[in-house]
Amino acid sequence: MSRVLSPSHGALTQPRSPSGLIYAPVAHDLEAVERVFEDTIASPRPAIARMLDRLTHYRGKRLRPTLLLLTARACGRMTPAHHVLGAVVEMVHTATLVHDDVLDEAGLRRHLPTVNAGWGNKAAILLGDYLFTHAFHLTSTIGEARACELIGEATNRVCEGELHQTLQRGNLNLTEAEYFEIIDGKTAALTACCCRLGALYAGAGAETVERLANFGRLLGLAFQVADDLLDLVGREDAGGKTLGTDLEQQKLTLPLIHMLAALPADEAASLRSVLGNGKPKRAAVANALDRTGAVHYARERAESLAADAAGELDALPPSECRELLRMMTRWAVRRDT
Amino acid sequence: MSRVLSPSHGALTQPRSPSGLIYAPVAHDLEAVERVFEDTIASPRPAIARMLDRLTHYRGKRLRPTLLLLTARACGRMTPAHHVLGAVVEMVHTATLVHDDVLDEAGLRRHLPTVNAGWGNKAAILLGDYLFTHAFHLTSTIGEARACELIGEATNRVCEGELHQTLQRGNLNLTEAEYFEIIDGKTAALTACCCRLGALYAGAGAETVERLANFGRLLGLAFQVADDLLDLVGREDAGGKTLGTDLEQQKLTLPLIHMLAALPADEAASLRSVLGNGKPKRAAVANALDRTGAVHYARERAESLAADAAGELDALPPSECRELLRMMTRWAVRRDT
Repeated sequence: MSRVLSPSHGALTQPRSPSGLIYAPVAHDLEAVERVFEDTIASPRPAIARMLDRLTHYRGKRLRPTLLLLTARACGRMTPAHHVLGAVVEMVHTATLVHDDVLDEAGLRRHLPTVNAGWGNKAAILLGDYLFTHAFHLTSTIGEARACELIGEATNRVCEGELHQTLQRGNLNLTEAEYFEIIDGKTAALTACCCRLGALYAGAGAETVERLANFGRLLGLAFQVADDLLDLVGREDAGGKTLGTDLEQQKLTLPLIHMLAALPADEAASLRSVLGNGKPKRAAVANALDRTGAVHYARERAESLAADAAGELDALPPSECRELLRMMTRWAVRRDT
Repeated sequence: MSRVLSPSHGALTQPRSPSGLIYAPVAHDLEAVERVFEDTIASPRPAIARMLDRLTHYRGKRLRPTLLLLTARACGRMTPAHHVLGAVVEMVHTATLVHDDVLDEAGLRRHLPTVNAGWGNKAAILLGDYLFTHAFHLTSTIGEARACELIGEATNRVCEGELHQTLQRGNLNLTEAEYFEIIDGKTAALTACCCRLGALYAGAGAETVERLANFGRLLGLAFQVADDLLDLVGREDAGGKTLGTDLEQQKLTLPLIHMLAALPADEAASLRSVLGNGKPKRAAVANALDRTGAVHYARERAESLAADAAGELDALPPSECRELLRMMTRWAVRRDT
């Protein structure tokens, strides 16, 4: 999810119209989350504090704390634990972004230099570790091992998903099932955890907690499928000129997997050898994507996951926050279309 | 502590004579720790499992679980929680080793290829993260937020110490106080935590817990001072031909800090410019080290810290495990002399 925080995605906490629509009911809570985040990672050492300052521009739309807070309000109760846990999930996400930038040798994030660009890979790896350990320590301050267990489980799955994806790079026979396993870990496990924690600490009943966790999971899956699609077909303002960084890194995503499965075997084999040999020509892939309806297929899958997510919200009584969560399912799949 | 696991240091669990001396009373507990470690990180994905197999040779003398287990036995009680926590501290330590090897671009560890050498930096960074998150999740399975808090605090300090050290590389005016702050974080925080957890979960009284935590801290400091000294002056079998990797990386350690402080100002300044410009000549440094008695000074500091550590053991009733802990203070500072 390294592209999640790009400015063109930043519609959630700064919606274009009507202003403040999404986050208004939890705006003060998001500020509280922000304060906990800042206070937790603060360091008295000037050299470390300067690095931490750079993290300000790593934080974009705060999808994960927003999900956690809206779920809590939709379940009818907001507690200080929610603010702490909102900071925890944002900190875990920030840790993965800092390490992603090292992995991708990225020099810029949101138009400003990355941590690795400013201080080198060593410091960036250690800063990511620092954020992970502070997130876990912060969780423990709530005083309940159950919260530590849930955050521990979710982060285990995030790391396993990322590791799985990295080890599968260059595998041009990746199946749809394997793709979904990967994004279920690297993205959906944490969004599911956000909604579970939001509901749990609001005192929701067991069934509601499960349905909201499933809402978070499906939303995360829809979001990632849409994000991967966007990486491949490009945003409108990019003029569709690139084939995306995933393909450059030989990471197969849903449209390509569908395309390869739908083509006749010999054609798929020859396309795989094109994809496996340096930079593939856009034309060759675009034609095959077109003929197999692969982009449409992936968009439909994202829409369908988002619709399933919205369905889980029926577990909640009607409220403004429930409607905002429903809006998020639409936003997740139609951010740039 | 990247050199801790080198084979020539492996005297603790494989003592040369008499065989089994150190670990015998906790040998079965160490096996239980091992099983928890393996079961916790196991992955059903063959590609991940192969990477995890490589970790076997990252584990050397198991200093941290041994400390935790001996402390528990010396306090009179061993519980399943001790086995879990022993695996946790070893997992945290292993995570830092995996990331250290990426940081140091190390190709070999204990004569076998490192994770980064086998699978690349991306996978190695993610595997380190995987170990960190699994360590935290494992801690939570004990069901007590207090354990999560202690592990969280210790790992925060380890990361802050490592970050501090990395950001101070090239600072040839590092003071002795700053050096001790760094090693107090990167090394002593975790050894202190091991002894604290060992005592706490054995039901020791508050004062005993504090004194044993201080024992662990002082032992960690003594160990690190001795380790840094060894890096500079070399092991006997290395013929003293190198000036050590710390100096190559422009990390000032205790003997050099003392040397620079003890020299006349103009001589210190000219030596700083020699140290700051590429590879310094051994002769120039060796002479100044000699004249200022810097090696002797650092050795005395290590011995004195070890003696202070041993003093804290008076909080315990006499036992075989107490004597083994006392032996560890001597081993910590005299491993290769």
